Amino acid sequence: MAYKTDIEIAREANKKPIMEIGAKLGIGPEDLVPYGHDKAKVSQSFISSLADKPKGKLVLVTAINPTPAGEGKTTTTVGLGDGLNRIGKKTAVCIREASLGPNFGMKGGAAGGGYAQIVPMEDMNLHFTGDFHAITAAHNLLSAMIDNHIYWGNSLEIDERRVTWKRVLDMNDRALRDVVTSLGGVANGFPRQTGFDITVASEVMAILCLATDLKDLEKRLGDMIVAYRRDRTAIYARDIKADGAMTVLLKDAMQPNLVQTLENNPAFVHGGPFANIAHGCNSVIATTTALKLADFVVTEAGFGADLGAEKFMNIKCRKAGLAPDCVVLVATVRAMKMNGGVAKAELGQENVDAVKSGCANLGRHIGNLKSFGVPVVVAINHFVTDTEAEIQAVKDYVKTQGSEAILSRHWELGSEGSEPLARRVAEIAESGVSQFAPLYKDELSLFSKMETIAKRIYHADEVIADKKIRDQLKAWEEAGYGHLPVCMAKTQYSFTTDPTQRGAPTGHTVPVREVRLSAGAGFVVAVCGEIMTMPGLPSKPAAENICLNDDGQIEGLF
Amino acid sequence: MAYKTDIEIAREANKKPIMEIGAKLGIGPEDLVPYGHDKAKVSQSFISSLADKPKGKLVLVTAINPTPAGEGKTTTTVGLGDGLNRIGKKTAVCIREASLGPNFGMKGGAAGGGYAQIVPMEDMNLHFTGDFHAITAAHNLLSAMIDNHIYWGNSLEIDERRVTWKRVLDMNDRALRDVVTSLGGVANGFPRQTGFDITVASEVMAILCLATDLKDLEKRLGDMIVAYRRDRTAIYARDIKADGAMTVLLKDAMQPNLVQTLENNPAFVHGGPFANIAHGCNSVIATTTALKLADFVVTEAGFGADLGAEKFMNIKCRKAGLAPDCVVLVATVRAMKMNGGVAKAELGQENVDAVKSGCANLGRHIGNLKSFGVPVVVAINHFVTDTEAEIQAVKDYVKTQGSEAILSRHWELGSEGSEPLARRVAEIAESGVSQFAPLYKDELSLFSKMETIAKRIYHADEVIADKKIRDQLKAWEEAGYGHLPVCMAKTQYSFTTDPTQRGAPTGHTVPVREVRLSAGAGFVVAVCGEIMTMPGLPSKPAAENICLNDDGQIEGLF
Repeated sequence: MAYKTDIEIAREANKKPIMEIGAKLGIGPEDLVPYGHDKAKVSQSFISSLADKPKGKLVLVTAINPTPAGEGKTTTTVGLGDGLNRIGKKTAVCIREASLGPNFGMKGGAAGGGYAQIVPMEDMNLHFTGDFHAITAAHNLLSAMIDNHIYWGNSLEIDERRVTWKRVLDMNDRALRDVVTSLGGVANGFPRQTGFDITVASEVMAILCLATDLKDLEKRLGDMIVAYRRDRTAIYARDIKADGAMTVLLKDAMQPNLVQTLENNPAFVHGGPFANIAHGCNSVIATTTALKLADFVVTEAGFGADLGAEKFMNIKCRKAGLAPDCVVLVATVRAMKMNGGVAKAELGQENVDAVKSGCANLGRHIGNLKSFGVPVVVAINHFVTDTEAEIQAVKDYVKTQGSEAILSRHWELGSEGSEPLARRVAEIAESGVSQFAPLYKDELSLFSKMETIAKRIYHADEVIADKKIRDQLKAWEEAGYGHLPVCMAKTQYSFTTDPTQRGAPTGHTVPVREVRLSAGAGFVVAVCGEIMTMPGLPSKPAAENICLNDDGQIEGLF
Repeated sequence: MAYKTDIEIAREANKKPIMEIGAKLGIGPEDLVPYGHDKAKVSQSFISSLADKPKGKLVLVTAINPTPAGEGKTTTTVGLGDGLNRIGKKTAVCIREASLGPNFGMKGGAAGGGYAQIVPMEDMNLHFTGDFHAITAAHNLLSAMIDNHIYWGNSLEIDERRVTWKRVLDMNDRALRDVVTSLGGVANGFPRQTGFDITVASEVMAILCLATDLKDLEKRLGDMIVAYRRDRTAIYARDIKADGAMTVLLKDAMQPNLVQTLENNPAFVHGGPFANIAHGCNSVIATTTALKLADFVVTEAGFGADLGAEKFMNIKCRKAGLAPDCVVLVATVRAMKMNGGVAKAELGQENVDAVKSGCANLGRHIGNLKSFGVPVVVAINHFVTDTEAEIQAVKDYVKTQGSEAILSRHWELGSEGSEPLARRVAEIAESGVSQFAPLYKDELSLFSKMETIAKRIYHADEVIADKKIRDQLKAWEEAGYGHLPVCMAKTQYSFTTDPTQRGAPTGHTVPVREVRLSAGAGFVVAVCGEIMTMPGLPSKPAAENICLNDDGQIEGLF
């Protein structure tokens, strides 16, 4: 049996005008700002008018540690959203926007897959509604204003060696990681070494995704630390007087984007911060807006549950006053087999023993998620090669962990395939059984917060950090930043800091190599291992094969 | 009497839905791609369907050499467009898009002024429909692919010292003019010195504005020279395999943007190349599309007529098969007075003698324009401080030059004020009197083309260039580029290369300091004097005062 590719299915989509999709949520045409006929932003004024409306149920979709087999977290998010709509629950999906740059490196993008996709896929993988370009512009305006301040006399007494604010581009460009600027003589300023990150790594991106409104956005932008003086006191973006103009550049980008699933159900696609040095979730404003318009909101978090769900709970929910009513943990038979030691080429063969021995990673995540007080359902994202016995092995294992696993066939069948999952998720969410609480209190010290996550989520024995790092954390606590949550930047492939350690390891050590203060976003980043904030292109970039064909369709992007 | 500011007038605009504006030109809602309710792109498929339609009349608005008094070229373009619509001629205006970066430097932007403006002014001065961001992304993708090619083995044998393709940002950032990239060790590539230009200086911008369709766009992008080998042979963007992906990034940007005047008449605002190292006109695709939809199209060219109109005629019209039916040369009484030696602070005082003695610059431009075989009308853009005697002095002078000057009061009165100008322009354009021809033939040598412009337009005695430059021109001629037009990069303030020489100087010398080949755009640039392709910010950037006020309106941008 031959299956259609994602792009074939997406091109056959029977899209409805975006105004009709908005109408499903009660948004009038005057409150939608169209971008073409299939994309729109929800107007700020409409969002403001929703303040007193009650919230719907919030469902988080997360996953086991990613394997090369692919888990299908976004696909399941979309499929579950369609399934909930199918059983009569007014549901919106909330996911992140894609970064443009990486699509020109590896074969990229796509929002979901099979019959569980969000469209228009091509626009979403290119400029979409321009949000990331706005973030790039706002970020780089601040950069230019910092060097301009130094150029014109440096009255703030910025130590040129301690400018922490870099520049960004939404492009995989390793040549920009480490640069010297302001060469060429007096007219170009004072030479200094700096660099570029990719746009999604900008603190501005994290702020856009955590800000509750434009006022909050402006305040957070002003709070960002951009440099230090010789006496180590901080210079803020507010001191550079960039916060107002940056807010103006971001005012449209703050409005959530509305698109649709293949089944013409509403999907908000807004914001896309890194899931290592930032919190990796779509915007607070999209999630809260969706919750006021729908009975159910299905959203996802980046990477596996150890990183993405942990940050969703401890950063996004804590800061935005959100609480998930149910968590769906995505797993696949194939991923269990890989965790059980099967090579990728052999995943097509039935191997029940490998499935069983690979379930430990899944079990660890179930337990971790329950520790937040939330009910957990495992979604087995069905692959057509999965056998009955293998599926049953996963179900049996999950039962031993005090949870339940439900097979979901949305990839193949759309909402018809996800209906059983949707029914169970709806039942749990509506039962009110969730008793969500973040893992740690604001008052805990920064280092103790890191230890709490390492011990309770990663099941490590200890966190190690040298004196310089501990002193830095103390200094930030004294400066009033001690109440912030921490944001762990660690490999997504393992509970440890070693990407090759699959399963559910214990007894390991988490070394904190560096700490960073994102004072505007409102978290302290603990860097555990090498974190790349500006990717490079591969030897054969996908861009070489991307083009318009004679029908004006895009080739090679997916 | 108190006049409202431009921004006050713009905010009071009674905008119509963009679909209604499109309908005035016979564009159906399915052929408009909306960006909000007041901006839209005209779809590529609709444009393709117009191929066999006849063209309307083309009117070029140009100006004398700019003075600090301000001439109001765009204001007159918009006012004339409204005036023509008022007298029953179906008319569209075509102007350039504004660059975002400079708006954060000096108090910026605005499209026209008074009651002759295009709206939404704020969007047009910010991200608009994202065209410039798309150009930035396409340009920088090529940059990243060049360094990536070198990184992965450099099979094209690029001489790293001769990479001519830089990077761009739409930002005034002097620190990026001259940089060293790829520092930091093996993983980041081979360090080399390069720089950033502002996006409007990108050859991609010039190409977008000269390409006739997406196929032509892709071909021109591939034709761009990005580097040389040690043997001085050229490396093209096509060799880097970036042309297809760049075209994909630019496919939406190639569609012209439709907005409206304060009087709800259609205006295309599309493209914005530099007017020194490029040709400084809005896109060919916008102009040709407008000509097929309207009876009259009023467009403008950058800077004064010596630069902007010359390039409009010799580059844009030549390449796109266009021919102006009438040229409107904008002058003001104030500018005549400044040319006549009056300081800016004293422009409010009547001074007929100064007006008379300042008219030489105007006369020179009239003669120059006539040498293209086109009829010329002088528009005196009225200022409320102008006296009857001063206005009459300009009119009398223009009559001695075999042309006529018409007072136009569009700034104060909108189309009511520009009706006399519109009537005369319509009469001339419809008379078919224009016998347009470019100033030189394709076959002339590159250096002779420069001499032709210098002698016939600038009224210089000679062009000087050292042997290296003359050899370079010969080498390009041998390589097949001899048929290209030349693009003069010279100060806009004078007919000479010295910005302080006002009036109509003769006997001067034009030194060509450098020549550049824009092989994709299709012209050879002659750099005569210092040309800045990356501006800096002033000591008090406008950005410091730009913010959203409590009503959500933008303050400080205009």
